[in-house]
Amino acid sequence: MARIVQKFGGTSLADIERVKDAAQLVKREVGADNQVLVIVSAMAGITDRLVNHASEISTLHDAREYDVVVSTGEQLTAGLFALALQNLGIAARSWLAWQIPIHTDGVHGKARIETIDSVGLEHSLAAGEVVVVAGFQGLGPDNRVTTLGRGGSDTTAVALAAALDAERCDIFTDVDGIYTSDPRIVEKARKLEKITYEEMLEMASVGAKILQTRAVEMAMKNGVRLQVLSSFSGEPGTLVIDEDEIVEQELVSGIAYSRDEAKITLTQVADRPGVAAGIFGPLADASINVDMIVQNVSADQKTTDLTFTVTKADLERAVATLEERRGDLGYADLVADAGVVKVSVIGVGMRSHAGVALRMFQTLAEKGINIQVISTSEIKVSVLIAEEYAELALRALHGAYDLDVD
Amino acid sequence: MARIVQKFGGTSLADIERVKDAAQLVKREVGADNQVLVIVSAMAGITDRLVNHASEISTLHDAREYDVVVSTGEQLTAGLFALALQNLGIAARSWLAWQIPIHTDGVHGKARIETIDSVGLEHSLAAGEVVVVAGFQGLGPDNRVTTLGRGGSDTTAVALAAALDAERCDIFTDVDGIYTSDPRIVEKARKLEKITYEEMLEMASVGAKILQTRAVEMAMKNGVRLQVLSSFSGEPGTLVIDEDEIVEQELVSGIAYSRDEAKITLTQVADRPGVAAGIFGPLADASINVDMIVQNVSADQKTTDLTFTVTKADLERAVATLEERRGDLGYADLVADAGVVKVSVIGVGMRSHAGVALRMFQTLAEKGINIQVISTSEIKVSVLIAEEYAELALRALHGAYDLDVD
Repeated sequence: MARIVQKFGGTSLADIERVKDAAQLVKREVGADNQVLVIVSAMAGITDRLVNHASEISTLHDAREYDVVVSTGEQLTAGLFALALQNLGIAARSWLAWQIPIHTDGVHGKARIETIDSVGLEHSLAAGEVVVVAGFQGLGPDNRVTTLGRGGSDTTAVALAAALDAERCDIFTDVDGIYTSDPRIVEKARKLEKITYEEMLEMASVGAKILQTRAVEMAMKNGVRLQVLSSFSGEPGTLVIDEDEIVEQELVSGIAYSRDEAKITLTQVADRPGVAAGIFGPLADASINVDMIVQNVSADQKTTDLTFTVTKADLERAVATLEERRGDLGYADLVADAGVVKVSVIGVGMRSHAGVALRMFQTLAEKGINIQVISTSEIKVSVLIAEEYAELALRALHGAYDLDVD
Repeated sequence: MARIVQKFGGTSLADIERVKDAAQLVKREVGADNQVLVIVSAMAGITDRLVNHASEISTLHDAREYDVVVSTGEQLTAGLFALALQNLGIAARSWLAWQIPIHTDGVHGKARIETIDSVGLEHSLAAGEVVVVAGFQGLGPDNRVTTLGRGGSDTTAVALAAALDAERCDIFTDVDGIYTSDPRIVEKARKLEKITYEEMLEMASVGAKILQTRAVEMAMKNGVRLQVLSSFSGEPGTLVIDEDEIVEQELVSGIAYSRDEAKITLTQVADRPGVAAGIFGPLADASINVDMIVQNVSADQKTTDLTFTVTKADLERAVATLEERRGDLGYADLVADAGVVKVSVIGVGMRSHAGVALRMFQTLAEKGINIQVISTSEIKVSVLIAEEYAELALRALHGAYDLDVD
C-alpha cells in the first residue's frame, strides 16, 4: 500500500462531468489499494469571476477580505469532489485549511505555509477515507483565511505530500507532461520522461507555467517526487525528481522562452560605486523584480550603459520610478523596449560540459539573430532577442541540441 | 450609541450594485453613531446554483459535504460586503461561523445554534469595526461546517442580536413590511406598523414566508425587537415585538393563507384506542408533518372518518406510507386531495373577544364557501376550503374584520 497525492487543476475540474472524470482517476488509485489525498483547485474560470466580483465592489483591496472571497472557489470544489467520490462508493471527506489546519504566515494573497497539522488527516486516511483538501488556502496567525497566490494549489499538494510522507505527488493538468520546448511552436518537441527539480525550476521561471515555482522548490527541498500528467489522456506524464534518480543525464533538457520580459537601457550612467544601488533600490522598494542585468564597460571610464529587464506588467511603473529620480541618477537617456523575448537553454548536464553556451551563440548567429543581453546560471543560458525571432530561435536551438523527435 | 443588527436577504444582495446599496444603509446607521452587525445571505440565485451543482454530482446527499458546498454562498457575500463598506470609508471585517464561532448541533442541513462566543465580535465592535457575519452557517461539534436550513440567515441575525444584546434587529428583504393579507390578492391590504411575535409566528406558519419561523421564536424567547423592511424603499417597515409594547391591540391583525396543504381522509377507521397512534406514528417516522386533524363522530360508534393535512410535497409519500400499512390500519378508503387551501384569521385580540370564529364562518357561508376542516389556536382560526375559493375568501374576510385600507 502506497500513499499518493493527486492534485487536480481548474481545467481538470472545469465542469461537473470533469469532476466526475477526475473522481474516476482517484478510484483507480484506491482500487490499487493506495491511500489517496486529493487536492483541488477552483473550477476553471471561478477564481477569475470571484476576483472580478471583488474588483467591481471596491478599488481598495483589503487582502484579508479578498482571501475570504476567492477561497470559496476551492471550498466549493472540495465539497463537490467528496460527493463525487462517495457517489462511486468511495469513502471520502473534504478538508478546509482551517480544519486541518494548514498554518500560514499572515501575508494575505500570497501567504507561505508554515506548519501542517497532520493528525486529523492521518486519522481520516487510517479510517479508509480519501482525504479531499481545498487547495490554495491557509489559516493565518490571526485565525483568518489566507490564500497562497496564483497556482497555490500546487504548493498545497506538495506541502501535504511532504507532511504526510507520500510516495508521489501527481499534478493533473491540461498538458500531458513537460516538453523539450513549447509544442505549439516547436513541432518536433517531445515529452520528457524525467526532468530534475533544478531544470523544472528554470523551465517554470522562464515561462513554461505548468507548475508553480514555489511548489517545485518545496518538492526539491523535501524530496517529493512530482509527476505532471494529463487528467484527460490517462497516460504517464513527466516525473520531476532528484538528479540522482536520473541515470543517464541529457546535456540539455529543454529550450524555454518567456514573452513576459521588457528591456530598459539607461545610457551614460556615472561609473562609480553606489550607482547600481541608486537605480535598483527604488525599483525594489516599488516591488519591481529585475531579472537580467548587463553593464557595459565604458569607453571613457566615467560613464557606462546599464541594461536590465523587468516584467512587461511592471515596465510602465519601472520607467516612471526611474524618471522621477532622473536628477539623482544622472543618466542621459532611458530607452524602454517591450518587443523582446528571452530564450533559454536548460540542462543540468551543462555543469560538466563546456561549449553549451557557445553552441547557442553560434546557432543564433547562423540564423542572423542578434543577442541583446546574455545571462547564465549553472544549468541555464538565457539570451534576450527581438521578439520577431522567437519561433525561429526556438526551432533552431531545439535542433542544434539534438532534441528533435525522430 | 445603540447596537443594531442589519440582516440582508438574497434579493437585497442580488448583484454587486445592490450590495453597494445595502452598504449605504449600513453607513447610515454608522453615521448615526451606532454599532452595527451585518448578517448576509447568499446573493439571490447562488444557493440554488450550488444546490444544483451538488445534485448533478451525486444523488447521494452526504449532508456534511452539501453544507461545505452551499455555505460558500454566504462566505462570498460576507467578504464582498466588508469590501463594499471599506470602499465607503467604514472599518469592517467579515466573520465566518467557525471564526466566531457559532456552535451548532451536528444536524447538517438544518442545524440548531447552541452557543455563540461573542468575545471576538465584542472586540471588533469596540475597535470601531462593522462586523459582517456570513449567515446560515455554523460550526458543528466535530469541527465541520453546518448550515441552518433555508432562511437560516434570519436565525443567525436574531441569535447574534440576542447574544450581543442589540437594541433592534432589522431584516431587510424585498417587501416593505408585514401586511394584513397578501397584497397581490387583497388590494385593500395595508402594511402593519406593529405585530406581536405570536401573530407573526402564525402568519409565517400559514404561508406568509417573510421570516423564518425559528427566527421569530428565538426573537420572542429572547425579547429581540425585529423590524421587517425593504432595502429598496428606505422606509420604516413593520416592528415585530412583544404584546406588552403594543398599547392598542387590534382584534384581528391579518388574514393569512397557505396553498401548501393537502388533505387526506381515511374512511371507516376502527374507533378504538391506539388507532391514531397507528396512523400518525409511521408518518412521523417518515418525517412527515401532519397539521390539521379532524376525527368525525361515527354513526355506528365502531368506525370513524379521519381527516388530516400534510404539505403538498409530502402527499405522495404520506399516501404510500399509509397504503403500505392498509392491512394493519384497516380503513375502507383513502381519499387524497391536493386542491385545498388553508385560510387563517390571526390576532392576539381574539383571546379576550368571543365571536371571532363565528364571524369567519358566517362570512364564508354568505359567499357560499364550504368549510372542510377547522382548527383553532388561542390567537388563530384556520379553515380548509377548496382552492378555487382562496381569493374570494381572503377578500371577504379582510373586509369582514375591518382590515381594508380606507
